[in-house]
Amino acid sequence: MKKSSHINILKGNIVHTETSKLFNISKNGYIVVQGNCIEGVYDKLPERYKNIEIEDYGDKLIIPGFVDLHTHAPQFAIKGIGYDKELIPWLETYTFPEEAKFIDKAYAEKIYKEFVNELYNQGTTRAVIFGTIHEESTEILMDLLEEKGISSYVGKVNMDRNCPDTLKEDSNESIKKTIKWVENCSGKYKFVKPIITPRFVPSCTGYLMEELGKIAEKYNLPVQSHLSENPSEIEWVKELHPDCKNYGDVYDKYNLFGQTKTIMAHCVHLTDEEIATIKKNEVVIAHCPTSNVNLSSGISPISKLLKKDVQIGLGSDISGGETLNMFAVMASTIKMSKLRSVCFKEEEKPLTIPEVFYLATKGGGRFFGKVGSFEEGYEFDALVIDDDNLWKVSKGSIEERVERLIYFGCEKNIINKYLSGKVLN
Amino acid sequence: MKKSSHINILKGNIVHTETSKLFNISKNGYIVVQGNCIEGVYDKLPERYKNIEIEDYGDKLIIPGFVDLHTHAPQFAIKGIGYDKELIPWLETYTFPEEAKFIDKAYAEKIYKEFVNELYNQGTTRAVIFGTIHEESTEILMDLLEEKGISSYVGKVNMDRNCPDTLKEDSNESIKKTIKWVENCSGKYKFVKPIITPRFVPSCTGYLMEELGKIAEKYNLPVQSHLSENPSEIEWVKELHPDCKNYGDVYDKYNLFGQTKTIMAHCVHLTDEEIATIKKNEVVIAHCPTSNVNLSSGISPISKLLKKDVQIGLGSDISGGETLNMFAVMASTIKMSKLRSVCFKEEEKPLTIPEVFYLATKGGGRFFGKVGSFEEGYEFDALVIDDDNLWKVSKGSIEERVERLIYFGCEKNIINKYLSGKVLN
Repeated sequence: MKKSSHINILKGNIVHTETSKLFNISKNGYIVVQGNCIEGVYDKLPERYKNIEIEDYGDKLIIPGFVDLHTHAPQFAIKGIGYDKELIPWLETYTFPEEAKFIDKAYAEKIYKEFVNELYNQGTTRAVIFGTIHEESTEILMDLLEEKGISSYVGKVNMDRNCPDTLKEDSNESIKKTIKWVENCSGKYKFVKPIITPRFVPSCTGYLMEELGKIAEKYNLPVQSHLSENPSEIEWVKELHPDCKNYGDVYDKYNLFGQTKTIMAHCVHLTDEEIATIKKNEVVIAHCPTSNVNLSSGISPISKLLKKDVQIGLGSDISGGETLNMFAVMASTIKMSKLRSVCFKEEEKPLTIPEVFYLATKGGGRFFGKVGSFEEGYEFDALVIDDDNLWKVSKGSIEERVERLIYFGCEKNIINKYLSGKVLN
Repeated sequence: MKKSSHINILKGNIVHTETSKLFNISKNGYIVVQGNCIEGVYDKLPERYKNIEIEDYGDKLIIPGFVDLHTHAPQFAIKGIGYDKELIPWLETYTFPEEAKFIDKAYAEKIYKEFVNELYNQGTTRAVIFGTIHEESTEILMDLLEEKGISSYVGKVNMDRNCPDTLKEDSNESIKKTIKWVENCSGKYKFVKPIITPRFVPSCTGYLMEELGKIAEKYNLPVQSHLSENPSEIEWVKELHPDCKNYGDVYDKYNLFGQTKTIMAHCVHLTDEEIATIKKNEVVIAHCPTSNVNLSSGISPISKLLKKDVQIGLGSDISGGETLNMFAVMASTIKMSKLRSVCFKEEEKPLTIPEVFYLATKGGGRFFGKVGSFEEGYEFDALVIDDDNLWKVSKGSIEERVERLIYFGCEKNIINKYLSGKVLN
């Protein structure tokens, strides 16, 4: 960052979480942004900035932009329906037939446009997204995200077994297409990057996973997939890979488990051994509470994983999850953690409001670098929040305003967005 | 119902649940209303109605009005905050101090106006509501509900032990005031009726409960209270009433358990003996899923209770629950039932969409008489639903539209409301 970079100053009620332990709040405070990055947050503006114009948001809240670590853009048209089944039959009945439609680029453009608009409206400034096996449709999605200026990783999905013929790739074709897609994307976008995306172990042969691991390494690309979401899925993986110690071990064997930056979605039913490898390999967990309840997958032990210092962010997981609204995903995260603590009577405490806020911002943001917090040197991603409609009687404290926002917040509360120092229009 | 009553005919996609087993759907059907009540639902309009003008709602959905069996109007200002505590400390920290403010009639009017407006906007046509100990403020609430035309039972709360001095009534004063309030209400309202409302066992002495039982009997008034919400509460009740077999038995002893029509809210941790008495005494359960998760109370075995043919409806339970939106309460009901089935691995299956729809309409409606369904002779309470905003791509089947509505529906989807045959304005 050059010293000469343009300086922006915003004033408002500034809320972020440097750690998951508590809120950092500056009431009627100032946030100084130099170029893309934060210079500092101040309760009283330092003398040296006194001649710079201030964008005064009054009593509004200024919070970091949301980071959505796991979602499936091609499932956008089937959100909020078909939750009568668990993972595997749900994929077969609803999801695979829908994803097969994305061979049609016109259909892809229609759905992806709706998806990207909604993602943008919901205040998600950073996202990690599954496409389908169709590389051309996936590029349409990437083009649309670039146009909106949403910082994102997008994956062309790979699958060469245990799926309908409409989605089953020839292994070598899949590899070739992936390389071509990766090279095609290189340097094409400012905000959007490719991510290697084996769907999940049951739908990828060892050969395919091995080659994808090589591609990730060669092009230094991150990896995303699903891990230990549903008990039947886990059993199936055991049958498919009896040589591996556990589900995570299959990815690890093929260098898809932290060898480059990796996100694993769900992680509901991890063994202690799996947790140890996740931590050692610095694999990032995308916690998807809405999906985990809708598909009856279970309740992930997030409080326990946070204590072990595993890196965790939140995922909306459309369409297992019904909504891209990250306020709602946070509320669901708290609720699920309460039920875990009630049902299993373990020593895990329910998650606190700062903890879920941290997960939705800095927790996931770490995958993107210095993102998701208002600390010095962090990229300035922010949402300006008008919550007047939630306080018809008399406004509470900043902490209470954030709590109520988590339960009721929606796109209409977001009145301005910043990504990496610039207003998102 | 006189044969000469005015006839109204509505056309649209008519959805209701005569039983919890499945939807009764009439696509582009007709609903014939004679006076207050339903004459019939028809796929093809009978010849005899051919000269009557039809209110044509086109592709919109027509569903029964919502019934909210349990909610606390004076807690409206603290919804969506303070969910870091379980029931008893939550009451002491947040709820009792807030309720104490309702000695001030101006404050009561302010909050109750917001509450009633919101209840109305959310499409709740029938509700059973707690006030506070303050009989004058409670009458303000009743006046406001009457003005809006919401059919409701409202309770002046009684409590004479284990609460702050600001809310503790002298037992005889409490009884005297209750009688005066009941007599004052008699014949005053068209839509609103009094209901006897001991807060819950811990805050009512045996003497007070006994006298309230007598009042309920003498004036033939229904009763509402709380039952077996939280494990600590249940332990406390055991200590307070060691002579009683269980929590429910305390109410039963004082004729507050089905001797007149009775609603018991929560019922999360019932014994088999309690369930048997509930069924025998025809006590109605108000299931409050949002509150049960927010206050970490637990997951009520609704699927099991439905199978035993216990009468159940839904309660928003403001402010243990965060919202009066009954779509959201239905979604929460499904989600909680999935987690119960996942966590406890019992034979209980998750609730289906028709089951929760039934609970939110006919299940609770039975408390009001023939209410909550579009069967012949039922009072015509209905909501006309425009769900176009939920289907940006292409509309699904009627069942899918109802499912998505449960996950995303809100006041803006409700474009018209009927109560007992008349439009609610």
